[in-house]
Amino acid sequence: MNTEEVAKKLVELCEKGAYKEATSSLYGENIVSVEAHSMGGMPAEINGFDAVCKKTQWWIENHEVHSSKVTGPFVARDTFVVRFDIDVTEKNSGKRMQASEIGIYKVKEGKVVREEFLPMV
Amino acid sequence: MNTEEVAKKLVELCEKGAYKEATSSLYGENIVSVEAHSMGGMPAEINGFDAVCKKTQWWIENHEVHSSKVTGPFVARDTFVVRFDIDVTEKNSGKRMQASEIGIYKVKEGKVVREEFLPMV
Repeated sequence: MNTEEVAKKLVELCEKGAYKEATSSLYGENIVSVEAHSMGGMPAEINGFDAVCKKTQWWIENHEVHSSKVTGPFVARDTFVVRFDIDVTEKNSGKRMQASEIGIYKVKEGKVVREEFLPMV
Repeated sequence: MNTEEVAKKLVELCEKGAYKEATSSLYGENIVSVEAHSMGGMPAEINGFDAVCKKTQWWIENHEVHSSKVTGPFVARDTFVVRFDIDVTEKNSGKRMQASEIGIYKVKEGKVVREEFLPMV
């Protein structure tokens, strides 16, 4: 798949809330994942397919999603961008929050090799 | 200025349509500017402050902006992202178009050193 095909597939899966499937089917072995801040006891930057799958699993288990909106993709060359607007409750704290963030993705040989998240300020 | 301050200033100037001022006040000497496609006889990637100012000038002279919306910034580390929705007529062809694109910006020592544009697909 080229960048646009990977991007559209990721958007399609995220729109369905199929985050685990998005990671397992589209991410490369050496994926680098960078959050704006560390979370769940994990560092902000983690490396490797297994670690990223584990983060996705942790996120799913620890959050209740009330609604979400996925906008994009925006695509050029090896890069695509997706916007996520999410209304979510953190199960541990019971804290409900509305968050908007951007994901920047890099694609190589049909797989996502880097993702980087930027919150709206 | 840090990344967030540069980002907010760029959004503020673009919201006013002050594209020229955004470029002249916030861009570094060695700015690299990457469009999705070449335009105006310029290559997709151009380098250096003077070349980017010239591109901005060309764009302003060759387009009539009917309305525009600037969303963001989204900020983390040395990177920020802004979304542009624009309703514009290309003066030469008379072609009016509505376009949405994302700009990814890198900041170093208080100046924008790279900008990269991705159209919505």
